[in-house]
Amino acid sequence: MSNGDIFVGEIIGTAILILFGAGVCAAVTLRYSKARAAGWVVIAFGWGFGVLAGAYTAAPLSGGHLNPAVTIGIAVDTGKWDKVWVYLLGQVVGAMLGAVLAYLVYFAQFQANVRTEGTTEGTEDEPLPTLGIFSTIPEIRSPVANLITEIIATVALVLPVLAFGLTKGLGESGTLVLIVSLLVVGIGLSLGGPTGYAINPARDLGPRIVHSFLPIPNKGGSDWGYAWIPVVGPLAGGALAGLIYNAAF
Amino acid sequence: MSNGDIFVGEIIGTAILILFGAGVCAAVTLRYSKARAAGWVVIAFGWGFGVLAGAYTAAPLSGGHLNPAVTIGIAVDTGKWDKVWVYLLGQVVGAMLGAVLAYLVYFAQFQANVRTEGTTEGTEDEPLPTLGIFSTIPEIRSPVANLITEIIATVALVLPVLAFGLTKGLGESGTLVLIVSLLVVGIGLSLGGPTGYAINPARDLGPRIVHSFLPIPNKGGSDWGYAWIPVVGPLAGGALAGLIYNAAF
Amino acid sequence: MSNGDIFVGEIIGTAILILFGAGVCAAVTLRYSKARAAGWVVIAFGWGFGVLAGAYTAAPLSGGHLNPAVTIGIAVDTGKWDKVWVYLLGQVVGAMLGAVLAYLVYFAQFQANVRTEGTTEGTEDEPLPTLGIFSTIPEIRSPVANLITEIIATVALVLPVLAFGLTKGLGESGTLVLIVSLLVVGIGLSLGGPTGYAINPARDLGPRIVHSFLPIPNKGGSDWGYAWIPVVGPLAGGALAGLIYNAAF
Amino acid sequence: MSNGDIFVGEIIGTAILILFGAGVCAAVTLRYSKARAAGWVVIAFGWGFGVLAGAYTAAPLSGGHLNPAVTIGIAVDTGKWDKVWVYLLGQVVGAMLGAVLAYLVYFAQFQANVRTEGTTEGTEDEPLPTLGIFSTIPEIRSPVANLITEIIATVALVLPVLAFGLTKGLGESGTLVLIVSLLVVGIGLSLGGPTGYAINPARDLGPRIVHSFLPIPNKGGSDWGYAWIPVVGPLAGGALAGLIYNAAF
Repeated sequence: MSNGDIFVGEIIGTAILILFGAGVCAAVTLRYSKARAAGWVVIAFGWGFGVLAGAYTAAPLSGGHLNPAVTIGIAVDTGKWDKVWVYLLGQVVGAMLGAVLAYLVYFAQFQANVRTEGTTEGTEDEPLPTLGIFSTIPEIRSPVANLITEIIATVALVLPVLAFGLTKGLGESGTLVLIVSLLVVGIGLSLGGPTGYAINPARDLGPRIVHSFLPIPNKGGSDWGYAWIPVVGPLAGGALAGLIYNAAF
Repeated sequence: MSNGDIFVGEIIGTAILILFGAGVCAAVTLRYSKARAAGWVVIAFGWGFGVLAGAYTAAPLSGGHLNPAVTIGIAVDTGKWDKVWVYLLGQVVGAMLGAVLAYLVYFAQFQANVRTEGTTEGTEDEPLPTLGIFSTIPEIRSPVANLITEIIATVALVLPVLAFGLTKGLGESGTLVLIVSLLVVGIGLSLGGPTGYAINPARDLGPRIVHSFLPIPNKGGSDWGYAWIPVVGPLAGGALAGLIYNAAF
Repeated sequence: MSNGDIFVGEIIGTAILILFGAGVCAAVTLRYSKARAAGWVVIAFGWGFGVLAGAYTAAPLSGGHLNPAVTIGIAVDTGKWDKVWVYLLGQVVGAMLGAVLAYLVYFAQFQANVRTEGTTEGTEDEPLPTLGIFSTIPEIRSPVANLITEIIATVALVLPVLAFGLTKGLGESGTLVLIVSLLVVGIGLSLGGPTGYAINPARDLGPRIVHSFLPIPNKGGSDWGYAWIPVVGPLAGGALAGLIYNAAF
Repeated sequence: MSNGDIFVGEIIGTAILILFGAGVCAAVTLRYSKARAAGWVVIAFGWGFGVLAGAYTAAPLSGGHLNPAVTIGIAVDTGKWDKVWVYLLGQVVGAMLGAVLAYLVYFAQFQANVRTEGTTEGTEDEPLPTLGIFSTIPEIRSPVANLITEIIATVALVLPVLAFGLTKGLGESGTLVLIVSLLVVGIGLSLGGPTGYAINPARDLGPRIVHSFLPIPNKGGSDWGYAWIPVVGPLAGGALAGLIYNAAF
C-alpha cells in the first residue's frame, strides 16, 4: 500500500466511523431527534456499525485500522514502524472530518440547542450536553481509574483484532470486519459504562478539536483537562495488546 | 441480466423491503400492535432486515439494488446508464406494492384508527399519525438542513456499497448482503434522527403515492410539500458517492 | 436423507426452536423472570436465534426446515411430495417437545402463577397470561384480516428462503442459516404486530396442544377457536411462495 | 495442541469472556455507569459478544472452549478425556482473571457503592447488589427447578455447538464463532429468565471465588449455598448433550 492510499483510506474510513459514532450520540441526545433517549444499546450498535462501514470501505486502501491503538498494536507486534505516522495522521484528520459531517447531519438539531420556552434547559447557564456527542466524558472523574478502564477496554479490542487478522489471514474478508464490528458493540455494552469507551485516541481527540471551534449555541466547554486520558490510555492499551500477543501466540 | 429479470427482481425485492420497512413503522406506531412503542432500535433493525430479505431475494434476478440512489451511484461510477430506467421503474412499482402489502398486514389496525372512547385521539381533528408509516417526516422542517442530512446519509450508504461490491467481487454472497443490511441498521441508528432517513427516493415516493389514495380512516395529509427532499437528496447523495468512489479508489 | 434422519432431525430442530421461542415469551411475560417486560425486540431476537440454533443443529440430518410452510413451499416448487409427511410429523412432535422443555425451564415461574398478595392478578378470575407463551393470539380478532396477515408474513419468510437455498446452493452453510434467522427476526419486528407471527403451523399447533394439558395454575383457556388461522394461513402462504418462486425465478 | 497452548488459550479466552460478561452486568447494575438499567437485551448481547471475543482470540491456541460443559460434551462424544483437566484448569483460572479485570474496569463505580445521601440504599444493612455482577442468582430459589433450568439451557448450548463444529469441520472459521456467539445471545434472551443462565461452571465459580475476596464496599455475601447448582447443572447438561449427539447424529 502506498502512503497516499493509506492516508486517503484512513481519512475516509475514520470519517465514516465518526460520522456514525458522533451521529448516534447526537441521535439519542439532542432534542427533535427521532432516536432521542433510545438508550445505550443504540449507542453501542451505532458505533459498532460505524466500524463496519468505515473499516470495510477503507480496507482495500489502507487495511482499515481507523484507530491509532490498532496501528500501534500491530507495530509493536510486527516491529514495522515506518508507516505508523501516515496512519495516525489520516486517522486524526478523518476523525475531524467525520465530526464535522455529523454536525452537518444534525445541524438543525444543534441550532435548536437553545432555551425551551418555560424551562431553563438550554440556556447559557444550563447548556444541553453537546461535548458528549463528540468526545468521551467519564461518569466518575478519577484519572487512575479512568486510565485503567481505557487501557483494559483497548486491550479487549486490539488483542482479538490481532488474533483475528494475523493468525488467520482473513485480512479483508467481510466476515472478519463483521466480527470486529460486533466486538466493538460488545466493548460498548460491557466496558463502556465508566468512561464511554474511547478505546481510540483519534476518535476522542479529533472530534474534541472540532467541538472546540464549531459555532454550536450554548455548547459548553470542551473539557481539555480530561483529553489526555482517552489518548494515553488507548495508546498504552494498544501497545500492551501487541506485547501480550507476541508473548502468547 | 435481461430487462425483464431486472424489472421483476427490483419489483419483488423493493416490495419486500417496503413491506418490512413500512411494516415496522406500523408495528411501533399503531394501536393494537404487539410492538407498539417498541422504540427506535426496532425501527432501525426492521428496515435493515428488510434490506436483507429484499436484496437477497432479488440478487439472482437484478443484483438487488432496491434503491435509485444505489443504481445512480453505480451508473456514475461505471458510466453505464442504459438499464438505469428499468431499475428505477421496478423500484418505484415495487415500493408501491410493498406499501400496499404492509397496509394489508396491518389492515385491522388501520381500521381501528378511530376515536378512542373518552379521548380525542384518532378523530378527524386529531388523527393518529399514519403518514410516518409510509414516508419520512422531518423533526425540524428546514429544507437546506434536511437536504444536507439526506445527502450525507445516502453517501454513507452508497460509498460503502460501492466499496463492498465493486472492489471485492462479492456481488451475490450472503456475507455481503448481511453487511449491507447491518450498514442500513447503522445509518438508521446514527443518521436517522433528523429526517427519518429516506436515503432512497423509491422508498419515500412510492409509499407516499400509496398513502394518498388508501382509504385509511382519519389518515391525515400526505405532505407533498416535503416530498421532493427525500427524492432529490438521495439522488444527489448517490451520484456524489459515485464521484467520490471514482476519485479515491 | 433417510426418513429416520429427517424425522429425528426435524424433532430435534423444531424442539430447539420452540424451546427458545416459547422460552423467550415466558421470559418477558412471567413474574420472577429476569427478562420480565424486556420488550418486543427481545421476543423477535429470541425467536430468530431459536431458528439459528434449531436449523443449524438439524441441518445435517434433515436440512432443517422446522416449519410445514417451508416444507410445503419447497414441495410446491420442486414437485416432490413423498417425504412431506415425515417432515410435518417430525415438526409437530418436535414443537410439542419444545413446549414441554420451555415449561420445564420456567417450571418455578409457572408454579408462581398465582395470586399476588394484595392484588387480584393471578387469580382464577383474572389469570396471568400463559397461552401467549405457547401460541399466538391476535391483537384484534378478525379472521379475514388475521389470515391475510399470516399469509403475507409467511410469503415474506418462505420466498426469501427459497431464493436463498435453491438458487445458490448454500444448503448447509452457516451464513445461510444466519441470514434466515435474521430474516425471522425481521419478520417478527415488522410483521408480528397484529397476530404475533405464527408463520409456522407446527410452531402454533404443537405448543397449543401442550398448553391444553399442562397443569399450569390459573392457566386460562387454549383458544381453540383461533387455532385454525395460524395453521391455514402459513400453509397457504408457503404454497403461495412456492408458486411465486416458480413463476418469477 | 500442546498442553501449554491449551492452558494459555483457555486462560486468555475465558478471561475475555468474563471481562465482557461481568462487565455488562456491572454496566447495567452499578450507579454512575452510562449503561445503568439498560435492560436484559444489553445483558444478553454483552455475554454473547464476550463469547465472540474470547472464543475467536483463543481459537488458534486451544480451540476456544471457554466452558467446562463444552469440554465435557466433546469428551463424552469423542471419548478423549486426557486433556480435559488442562481445559478445566485454564477455564477456572481465566474466569477468575476476567472477574478481576471487570472489577478494575468498574473500580470507581464499585468504590462508589456506598450510601447515597438521603437514602438507605448502599448501606451495610441494605447493600447494593454486587454478587449478581459476578455470579448467577436464581429469581426463585428451588434447587430442583434451578438445576433443570441449567441442564436444559446447557444442552441447548452444547448440542448445537457439537453439531456446528464436529459435523461440518468449521472448527476455526469466523462464521462458526459468530453463530455460537449469537446462540449464546439467544440462550440468554430465551432461557436466562429463571436462573441468569450460568450454562458454564467456570463462568459462575471463578467469579464467585473472586467476589468472596475482593474488597468491595458493602458487597454482601457470596451465596455459597447456591454455588453447586451452576456447577453441577451445566456439567450434567454438557454430558447429556454429548450423549444425545452420539445417539442422534
